[in-house]
Amino acid sequence: MIKPLSDRVVIQALEREEKTKSGIVLPDTAKEKPQEGRIVAVGNGRLLDNGQRVSLDVKAGDKVMFSKYAGTEIKIDGQDYLILSERDVLAIIE
Amino acid sequence: MIKPLSDRVVIQALEREEKTKSGIVLPDTAKEKPQEGRIVAVGNGRLLDNGQRVSLDVKAGDKVMFSKYAGTEIKIDGQDYLILSERDVLAIIE
Amino acid sequence: MIKPLSDRVVIQALEREEKTKSGIVLPDTAKEKPQEGRIVAVGNGRLLDNGQRVSLDVKAGDKVMFSKYAGTEIKIDGQDYLILSERDVLAIIE
Amino acid sequence: MIKPLSDRVVIQALEREEKTKSGIVLPDTAKEKPQEGRIVAVGNGRLLDNGQRVSLDVKAGDKVMFSKYAGTEIKIDGQDYLILSERDVLAIIE
Amino acid sequence: MIKPLSDRVVIQALEREEKTKSGIVLPDTAKEKPQEGRIVAVGNGRLLDNGQRVSLDVKAGDKVMFSKYAGTEIKIDGQDYLILSERDVLAIIE
Amino acid sequence: MIKPLSDRVVIQALEREEKTKSGIVLPDTAKEKPQEGRIVAVGNGRLLDNGQRVSLDVKAGDKVMFSKYAGTEIKIDGQDYLILSERDVLAIIE
Amino acid sequence: MIKPLSDRVVIQALEREEKTKSGIVLPDTAKEKPQEGRIVAVGNGRLLDNGQRVSLDVKAGDKVMFSKYAGTEIKIDGQDYLILSERDVLAIIE
Repeated sequence: MIKPLSDRVVIQALEREEKTKSGIVLPDTAKEKPQEGRIVAVGNGRLLDNGQRVSLDVKAGDKVMFSKYAGTEIKIDGQDYLILSERDVLAIIE
Repeated sequence: MIKPLSDRVVIQALEREEKTKSGIVLPDTAKEKPQEGRIVAVGNGRLLDNGQRVSLDVKAGDKVMFSKYAGTEIKIDGQDYLILSERDVLAIIE
Repeated sequence: MIKPLSDRVVIQALEREEKTKSGIVLPDTAKEKPQEGRIVAVGNGRLLDNGQRVSLDVKAGDKVMFSKYAGTEIKIDGQDYLILSERDVLAIIE
Repeated sequence: MIKPLSDRVVIQALEREEKTKSGIVLPDTAKEKPQEGRIVAVGNGRLLDNGQRVSLDVKAGDKVMFSKYAGTEIKIDGQDYLILSERDVLAIIE
Repeated sequence: MIKPLSDRVVIQALEREEKTKSGIVLPDTAKEKPQEGRIVAVGNGRLLDNGQRVSLDVKAGDKVMFSKYAGTEIKIDGQDYLILSERDVLAIIE
Repeated sequence: MIKPLSDRVVIQALEREEKTKSGIVLPDTAKEKPQEGRIVAVGNGRLLDNGQRVSLDVKAGDKVMFSKYAGTEIKIDGQDYLILSERDVLAIIE
Repeated sequence: MIKPLSDRVVIQALEREEKTKSGIVLPDTAKEKPQEGRIVAVGNGRLLDNGQRVSLDVKAGDKVMFSKYAGTEIKIDGQDYLILSERDVLAIIE
């Protein structure tokens, strides 16, 4: 098991099935910039300057949108993941 | 549904019908720099260093003026949106 | 109506009638760098790190001197304005 | 009248009569870097992060030494002045 | 014995036996970027601006993942170690 | 008299008589980088973000070692001095 | 005697007798990057933003490891020393 530190999260990127309204599947280069993924692990939270620890706004299981070029690629049990700061998570998709 | 994190907002850009006083419609290149849009979703607010969370000054439905080159383009259900920090929202148009 | 956010102000630039002591009107290139303008709208104030909001030192109607290259040009009802941070306002002219 | 904002000051630069010990007047290029001037107006003070406003250490009438390349040149009633941050004032000459 | 200062940790890098699912051992260049290691010593913690000292989230013995290019190589008793800030430790592997 | 502002000090540089152990006087280029000088005036102290003013650790008369390239050269009554921040004073020589 | 200011320390670099396990003395270029030294003097401590002064984690006599390119070379009584910030001291060797 991997336990990210501070405000870091581990994300599994999702392959997005991209279809235009007319039903045409777009090739990879026509896809949008931010990427979608699912949070698989979150850190214990960032420490504020007043010594208070702030838990994250995302939790394991959340489907999120994140900056494509943020973070570091890691491999756990042969599977690809990304580890990045919560600051690079743009939004939760519900 | 998309739920932006922290002080981020999701904006739908508005096409501006640009007319000079004499009624001539200006072509695209003659348009002004900042862009107008409508807020469709706002984050839970920025966290201050003292641990206090500050709700945003804008809310869903607000018509705003924002820095044209700020933020990240996202696509939700085939529709184009922008996700950006409230800092890049210049003003509310009432 | 436009309502700037945070510590931003909307300024209408003033054409300065520039005359030397001897009464000669100086052409545009001989003019000084900072520009004069009149505040037409002010934001709700900057938020300090302790959560306190600080109202601005300038108010609508003030004649001010501001950094010529600061801010963003906006157009409201065909009229040109500038939107900039109060930090770029150098002084109030009374 | 001009009223600088925050920690800014308005300074009137002083022409320095520069003489060597032997009495020779030095030409302009041999002069020292920092410039002398007289404070003609001071701002209402800088706002600290805790919301406290701090009045300036200099006051109108003070003869000061300041960084030659700091600030912005302004012209009031045909007279040249400089507007700069108190941080660029090095010392008071008494 | 080595006692790192502040939020620094001493890490012994681990050679990772990298195998693909099909059992093929990957050569060095195909390995992932972040490196794994074992914490051998931790500092007394970072000092916050309010004077409070914060103990580290990792402890001696922890297996961690860290940024490959972070820190400084040191040699203790002929053995290679890395000394780096806890900020460069991405996650604990349990 | 000159009264530096904030955490600034005025220093008179000292010519260092540099001799090797064997008594040979070293020429100028062989001298060490930091320079020695005597404090002739100190500012009223730096203002902390909490509004507290902190008096300096050095006082007029102190012999100090300072970064050679720090500060600004000033001339008072034909005499050369340096005005620099206390941060650029490395140590007091007693 | 030299009294460093703030969080600075004076260090006397130690010549490291570098031997490989097999007993071969390594020439200078094969040595490791960080350098070892002995603290000979420490400052009165860094001042936090809340006005609290924090004494150093190292004391005179401590054997330490420090960043080789940090600090400034000084000469006291013909002897070479380094003056550097405690931040550049990596660890205490016990």
